[in-house]
Order: sequence, then structure tokens, then C-alpha cells
Amino acid sequence: MTSTATRSRENTRARLLDAAAQVFAEAGLDGATVEAVCERAGFTRGAFYSNFESKDELFLTLAGTVAEERLNAVREQVTGMAAEGALGDADPVELVQRVMDAGGDDRLSVMLMSEIRIRALRDPAFGEAFLAQESELVASIAEIIRDIVDTGAIALRLEPDLAARLLMIAWEGMTVRGAMAADGEARLHDIASEALGRLVEALTV
Amino acid sequence: MTSTATRSRENTRARLLDAAAQVFAEAGLDGATVEAVCERAGFTRGAFYSNFESKDELFLTLAGTVAEERLNAVREQVTGMAAEGALGDADPVELVQRVMDAGGDDRLSVMLMSEIRIRALRDPAFGEAFLAQESELVASIAEIIRDIVDTGAIALRLEPDLAARLLMIAWEGMTVRGAMAADGEARLHDIASEALGRLVEALTV
Repeated sequence: MTSTATRSRENTRARLLDAAAQVFAEAGLDGATVEAVCERAGFTRGAFYSNFESKDELFLTLAGTVAEERLNAVREQVTGMAAEGALGDADPVELVQRVMDAGGDDRLSVMLMSEIRIRALRDPAFGEAFLAQESELVASIAEIIRDIVDTGAIALRLEPDLAARLLMIAWEGMTVRGAMAADGEARLHDIASEALGRLVEALTV
Repeated sequence: MTSTATRSRENTRARLLDAAAQVFAEAGLDGATVEAVCERAGFTRGAFYSNFESKDELFLTLAGTVAEERLNAVREQVTGMAAEGALGDADPVELVQRVMDAGGDDRLSVMLMSEIRIRALRDPAFGEAFLAQESELVASIAEIIRDIVDTGAIALRLEPDLAARLLMIAWEGMTVRGAMAADGEARLHDIASEALGRLVEALTV
């Protein structure tokens, strides 16, 4: 494939993913059809199916993209803090707060993750694909944790891979509860940051 | 109300909850109607609405009942282990394994919790009710943790309430992933037990 063709293909995928996010926001996962996504993106079903095998693959890719963007923001924040030498001095609660603020967590991505979770429970093949994607995410988080540990700023009482998995689950569990409390989202965000910070504090030496 | 009337009312509620569990297993939360639950239980809609305000209240009560039964089994297990003096000597991973086995986790309750979570995200009033119920659950878990700490078997690096919330979230997150891996449920159950055990180990002095 020429690089122009590659760029065009990437552009098509990006537009389909953007359209998928919009259609999901309006109709939810069950209500979002391939037709609606194609119409929104201005593509034919042919263009869709040359990029994604199915609606499930589209939404799993979307969830992966959202997670990756969040992770990149977190990585950048951590790198910045390491450069300022702020990792060693930081109070763990404050550190997690800064990292969580960088990672962001809009209501829409919480909804998307929750709906994908149901789909993964209902459909074993989708469940396997979800777990495989999540393992890659955990590996990336573990890498960030290893980088922090390597600066000598903190030492962990758990190996980075397990810490990564537990922190991901704790983050997910706390943010979903933050999104449930309609009027208290900001307050719950603070509670979630604090709980995660306290967890990090307890897990570090 | 006479005690006979109270028993009859409790019996009606229990039969409606049983029917709700069966209908949920067949049709999911969206597909489970008040009509279908009434028909299964052999009651009129009048009987239903004199016991529950809505379908949402019925399923939230069902989820609470399931959680309470699980918690009672865990409490019994812990009490038994304390009586044998097994709490102090137990390897945390083994301890959590025994507690998790007692608590059980069938696929159906994982599905129910996941669907209730989506409902709580979509509907703020239901979300508040869910969070209130969950706070009571966390308080009960914290009480069990306090009882264990009081035996002198372990000391925690976090206060019991926060530890309870984090353990509940970690349990939920690990078991939902176990339920996703259709062929590896048993294996993932072991991985989940081990991860939780390692978390407990890291959180104890």
C-alpha cells in the first residue's frame, strides 16, 4: 500500500470512529447501527466493512482508542512530573489526583466501557477480544509504573503488572460511581482520587 | 400488621424476587417486564405494586438480596476460621481464596450487577438509590474487616471503610472478568483469588 493509500485508510477509520462516538452518545450501543455510523461518517457500508469486521469490532476499537488517548495523557503527565523532579516529593494522593486529572474521564467513555462490558459478558468471542485488548492496556500501565519505580521515587509492595491491573480496576470502579452521582460528579471525582491515592500510598513502601 | 400478615407479605416479596431472578436469567433486565414477573410468581399487578414501587426497585432489591446472602456466607466463613484460630496463620492468598469460595459468584449475579450498573448510569434517581444501597454493603464489609482486625490476626495499612470499598471494587472487577472468559472461568477465578489475596497481603502489615 502506498503511504497515500495508508493515510486515506487511516483517515477513513478515524472518521468512522468519530461517527461511532457520536452515534453511541445519541443511541447507546444497542441502538447504534452500522447504517447510522456510515451515514454520519458519509461512507458506504462497503467502506465500513473494508475497515471493520463488525459493529462489535468498531466499538471495541473505539474503546481502545479512548483508553490509549487517556493513557498517553497520563504518560505525558508522569514524564513532565519526573522532569521537574516532582515524583519523589509528591504526596501519593496529590500525585494520583494530577494523574487522574490528566487521564480525564467523561461520562460518555464511562457509559461506553460499561456497555462494552455487558456485551463482553453476553458474547464469549467478544469477551475474549475484550480481555486481550485489556491485557495490552494493563501492560502499558505496568510500563508507566515501572518507569516511575525506576526513577527511585517510589518502591512498590506488589509487582508492577498486578499493581497495574488493580489500579485499572480501582480507577474504573471509582469513576463509574462518580458518573452515577449526577449532582456530585465533581465531589465523587475528588473522593475517587483520594481513594486511589490512599491505595497507592498503601501499596508503596 | 399481625405477624401472620407480615409473614404472608414476606412470602409474597420472596416469591416475586425468585420470579424476578428467573425472568432476568431468560430475558435480561430490559426484557424483564413487571407482567412477566407477576405471571411467573402467580400474582396480580396489584400484589406487585403493593410490594414494590417499580421494576427498578424490584431488581435493586434482588441485587441487594444476592449481595447480602453472599456477605452472610463470607461472614460465616470468617467466623468459622476465627473459631479454629485459622485467621492468624493463614496465608492471605489462601484466606481470600476460602472467603471468595464461600461468597460464590455465579454468572447470573455478575450479569445482574452489570446491567444494574448501566441502569444506574442512565437514570440519576436510580443511581442515587444504587449508591445508597452499596454504601450499606460497604459498611457491612468494613464491619467484617474490623472483626478480623480485632482478633489481632492482621493489621491494615488502610482504615477498614476504605479497604472495604477497594476490596469490593476489586472483587467485582476480577469476577466480571472471570465471567467473560467462557472456557477459563475456573482458571480466572483462581487468578482473581490470587490477585485479591496479593492485594490483601500488600494492604496488611
